Amino acid sequence: MSFNAIQHSFRGLQLPAPARPTSITTQDGSDLEYVDIYKYLESLVISDPDFQSEDLNFLSRSERYDAAVKKSAQMILKLREYGISDPEEIYCYKSCVHRGRAEPLDLHLGMFLPTLLNQASPEQMETFFIPAWNLEIIGTYAQTEMGHGTHLRGLETTATYDPATQEFVMNSPTITSIKWWPGGLGKTSNHAIVLAQLHTQGKCHGLQAFIVPLRSMNTHMPLPGVVVGDIGPKFGFDEVDNGYLKLENVRIPRDHMLMKYAKVEADGTYVKPPSAKLTYGTMVFIRSMIVGEAGHALAKSCTIAIRYSSVRHQSEIRPGEPEPQIMDYQTQQYKLFPLLATAYAYKFVGQYMNQVYHRITGDISQGDFSELPELHALSAGLKAFTTWTASAGIEVCRMACGGHGYSRCSALPDIYVNFVPTCTYEGENTVMMLQTARFLIKSYRQASAGHQLSGIVSYLNESERRLQPQSVSSRPTVVNVNDLASLVDAYKLRAAKLVEMAAKSIQQELQKRVSQEDAWNNSAIDLVRASDAHCHYVVVKLFAAKLGEIGDTGVHSVLSTLALLYALQGIQQHSGDFLQTGLLSVPQLSQVSQRLKDLLAQLRPNAVALVDAFDYRDEMLNSVLGRYDGNVYEHMFEWARRSPLNKTEVHESYHKYLKPLQAKL
Amino acid sequence: MSFNAIQHSFRGLQLPAPARPTSITTQDGSDLEYVDIYKYLESLVISDPDFQSEDLNFLSRSERYDAAVKKSAQMILKLREYGISDPEEIYCYKSCVHRGRAEPLDLHLGMFLPTLLNQASPEQMETFFIPAWNLEIIGTYAQTEMGHGTHLRGLETTATYDPATQEFVMNSPTITSIKWWPGGLGKTSNHAIVLAQLHTQGKCHGLQAFIVPLRSMNTHMPLPGVVVGDIGPKFGFDEVDNGYLKLENVRIPRDHMLMKYAKVEADGTYVKPPSAKLTYGTMVFIRSMIVGEAGHALAKSCTIAIRYSSVRHQSEIRPGEPEPQIMDYQTQQYKLFPLLATAYAYKFVGQYMNQVYHRITGDISQGDFSELPELHALSAGLKAFTTWTASAGIEVCRMACGGHGYSRCSALPDIYVNFVPTCTYEGENTVMMLQTARFLIKSYRQASAGHQLSGIVSYLNESERRLQPQSVSSRPTVVNVNDLASLVDAYKLRAAKLVEMAAKSIQQELQKRVSQEDAWNNSAIDLVRASDAHCHYVVVKLFAAKLGEIGDTGVHSVLSTLALLYALQGIQQHSGDFLQTGLLSVPQLSQVSQRLKDLLAQLRPNAVALVDAFDYRDEMLNSVLGRYDGNVYEHMFEWARRSPLNKTEVHESYHKYLKPLQAKL
Repeated sequence: MSFNAIQHSFRGLQLPAPARPTSITTQDGSDLEYVDIYKYLESLVISDPDFQSEDLNFLSRSERYDAAVKKSAQMILKLREYGISDPEEIYCYKSCVHRGRAEPLDLHLGMFLPTLLNQASPEQMETFFIPAWNLEIIGTYAQTEMGHGTHLRGLETTATYDPATQEFVMNSPTITSIKWWPGGLGKTSNHAIVLAQLHTQGKCHGLQAFIVPLRSMNTHMPLPGVVVGDIGPKFGFDEVDNGYLKLENVRIPRDHMLMKYAKVEADGTYVKPPSAKLTYGTMVFIRSMIVGEAGHALAKSCTIAIRYSSVRHQSEIRPGEPEPQIMDYQTQQYKLFPLLATAYAYKFVGQYMNQVYHRITGDISQGDFSELPELHALSAGLKAFTTWTASAGIEVCRMACGGHGYSRCSALPDIYVNFVPTCTYEGENTVMMLQTARFLIKSYRQASAGHQLSGIVSYLNESERRLQPQSVSSRPTVVNVNDLASLVDAYKLRAAKLVEMAAKSIQQELQKRVSQEDAWNNSAIDLVRASDAHCHYVVVKLFAAKLGEIGDTGVHSVLSTLALLYALQGIQQHSGDFLQTGLLSVPQLSQVSQRLKDLLAQLRPNAVALVDAFDYRDEMLNSVLGRYDGNVYEHMFEWARRSPLNKTEVHESYHKYLKPLQAKL
Repeated sequence: MSFNAIQHSFRGLQLPAPARPTSITTQDGSDLEYVDIYKYLESLVISDPDFQSEDLNFLSRSERYDAAVKKSAQMILKLREYGISDPEEIYCYKSCVHRGRAEPLDLHLGMFLPTLLNQASPEQMETFFIPAWNLEIIGTYAQTEMGHGTHLRGLETTATYDPATQEFVMNSPTITSIKWWPGGLGKTSNHAIVLAQLHTQGKCHGLQAFIVPLRSMNTHMPLPGVVVGDIGPKFGFDEVDNGYLKLENVRIPRDHMLMKYAKVEADGTYVKPPSAKLTYGTMVFIRSMIVGEAGHALAKSCTIAIRYSSVRHQSEIRPGEPEPQIMDYQTQQYKLFPLLATAYAYKFVGQYMNQVYHRITGDISQGDFSELPELHALSAGLKAFTTWTASAGIEVCRMACGGHGYSRCSALPDIYVNFVPTCTYEGENTVMMLQTARFLIKSYRQASAGHQLSGIVSYLNESERRLQPQSVSSRPTVVNVNDLASLVDAYKLRAAKLVEMAAKSIQQELQKRVSQEDAWNNSAIDLVRASDAHCHYVVVKLFAAKLGEIGDTGVHSVLSTLALLYALQGIQQHSGDFLQTGLLSVPQLSQVSQRLKDLLAQLRPNAVALVDAFDYRDEMLNSVLGRYDGNVYEHMFEWARRSPLNKTEVHESYHKYLKPLQAKL
């Protein structure tokens, strides 16, 4: 994901080479719209003989890494050849080349270069940027350590300034301080930006970033004191050499500390940075990109499962009749259609987050951070909310394909293992939910103190809360289960109620005379639940808002059905909350169940069209089950026959073990 | 899993070689209890130099298959050398050798041999069994086809009898009829039992089993007309050559049809089998084994996650204090402790199912099938209920380990990919839930018609149902959230209510004048929900019942806490059901939340002891994160350094692609 930062960081910069076209111009000289540009770049890759690689599922991990480095090297050359230097176009092209997979140069392009741009002094830009742009320097970004992830203050790597030589001495003082996980660190990079605790003049000044040469520019061999390598096989990410780095008294010159903000002078004097919240902004950006990716991963999975459910015939509904498409089973619809609706919802939410981020980027660059806390809180929670549900949803799609979903030819195992780490990276999901909760509780307390809230949390204002029902015994509100606006309101009131309950739990804990911190920890379950409800409300609200932008009546109608399905299914899944808070009555809940069934039947004829609308080309989806033409079985057989175990009719293990065994028995 | 059928099918048989000891006798001559036998066999494997294999995560798929065949061949020799021939002891030893993974001979041992025993005529036993026992014949069981899984009547493979030559002509008439998935079919087996539609004298007589030679006994090359191979890489099961088989006019002698029951005479006359429900029994047995496996997989995952959560320090609860063990966070406890309770519950349920099955096996062999429908329905639903929750739970455990859970060294990816297919095989889970629902609805209707039900569904009797509350508005029942028996009752009433709701949904559909079948399909969501509630009730009930068997007061106390946690967490997760059916009031639900938090805190000091009690040896768990001694980080570093990408300091891709690229830019 971190590559996406490139879109953010390169924007508006004059890149060194070559001249940047304002937009892609095709061979017949015409300009293209954005969607067309994406399709044009995709077609460039699909028709390029250099990118018709062997099926990666048939390769060993070392071969997959090798193939990825090869493609990345070709990609860099072609980007320059075609004159593609707009960040979004680079991202697009890269994504097509690697079929959406992470690759060995991701951190070079997405973190190393952007960090130089953001944090290097002008002199450092001179020294490092052009060599890095030309891949003479291949860099990565080494932050996470073996024993330290989300909590940055816990990082242990040290950079101790030695004024005698004007050098920093870099060390990994413990086993837990070994840098662990950075992509491209294991074998690809010859430099890293290393986050380390700065010590100078006998004092620790906290985390700073240092450019550390790792490998010889001539031989690529690790430099003295540098212990570097690959961290070994993972669930997925086979193409990436996530690495470890142990530093043993590695000396780097003083000017290798990134000094745009903080500085260390020749004598070792530390100069504080002016307070800067820019990295805050980058985090928001990356998390909002992940929300879009959640929609994307789920959309791909739904495409595969829904298309295959229309190809697969199984069992019978009515005796004597031919086996029906499995898409005709209500249970299959109930598995897949809410996920289809979710995929649309997350794509819209991702677009919204991206727009908001870009809208307030101008404010941020002018030092106005007023909207950032809300967006930061929202992006943290939504990242967690969407990645959890999307991950689980991918597996539901995979299992909805029966046994064949378990084959690598379905592409679903690959989608899962490459998406599911988003639940952990860029902020572990539970920690993210608690960050959002912190904002919600703070807002709640402000409102309780009479402060008038604005923005997305304005529902926490006292005046609004007084309108809420208090328990099941009170009169149920007038929720209309057929009206999306009314359901959005119900979600809002649920969120308000759950935030209030979390706040009260903290208060009750405090009355037991525990500390603020223990009260917080002892209420953490309620806090996560409140965040979850808040995020759910935001998604339903944004989905409903999106409908207002759609002019075409046919599209509007089917998307309205999807939005209603999304809202009602969420209510059914969390019916306890809605009953508990008195927002729904028991008879209304029965209405919700009935309405859901009706909507499933209503969506059935449009299901395939709705996934076709995501417009994934077969070459990109790379799934035998999800083929556009539905010729699943012929291609599955053909795929299997190309499997490495079928290279010979008789596997060598027969001669080595089975024949000798037979002789002995 | 299918291997487990061996336990079932070999029981009580005189196996050909060698003499079967009544129990293991150790070298000092003492006999051992069952648990000791398991530990003894485990220690035999752990100390055996032949079974100290390289880390499988570092091998390619072909190497993993090769290594598995090697181990299986060694295993067969050692079983004979040690004189181990009791089925449970074989299973135990095999499971230790392969660390619980599926292996290439699973279907030979678990399906091919048992099917011969159950369905071969005495003459066929003479011809086939001893060669198969001595692995001259290596067999598999080919049922599933590319286009046909759960619905057996849909299978397309044909066996057409030709009286002129007294042969069956075997064919795969369509692409969808190609046999697909059988383990060991791709490269290992030289024979298969093939399920095919029997055609003789111009009539189709449905599915029969045929022994089909696939490969030459001398060269192992496929025979004429046999197209056989590996189906390609999967999510997991890397050691198994799941295969395809296309038959093109393959002729087999008449006596290759298994003729213990049905027969085809020389002139082609078909002789019907006497009705036999024995295969029914095998299915029940295998599904009940899977329930135990769900407990096992979850227990291993909890062991890893809970041990690592006591090693991992992260962030802070109180400022200034050292980073706490992540096990101290309420959210982490809330993720893991209910799963720990679930693991215990499923282990107990698995034991119970096994006992019941063995108890009624005697009845079954005497033709008394009266208890089988209930057990069949229960095993189908519980298989689905436990595998779904355990699969999701394994992933929760994995993600609770943060980034390191994503590394193969955690063992959690491996546990997941090897367990999750249980949701699909031996009966797809949704289909299983609907089978249980069919039994529940049938029972409900019987009760409504005045018939008095006995057994586990007796709660559906009219008299009991009249005692139930009807809606939230009515007086809540006297559920005591601190009393397990009272909670078991609440689960029972919930199940009764949801079965009733599903039955009413069918009735309402019928009133719309749709067919029985459409009414069923249009109520499928409610039916699955009812089955789920029924299974949940059974699990809670059996967990509670187990407590009665425990004499040790300390153990009883901590298991009671676990059982209460399990029951309360289920109520919280399904609070909508309990509120909707009027079984709980809103204030009681708040009590449940508070009590849950108390129980988490209460279990915290015992958490590590509770996973240690599962007694997994490090060699079997094979997880760096789950090590008994807690020395996680040193071993993670050591493991990573052995990764294949670290065999050379500089990967060849540098010389092939990166250096040339640098020269061009």
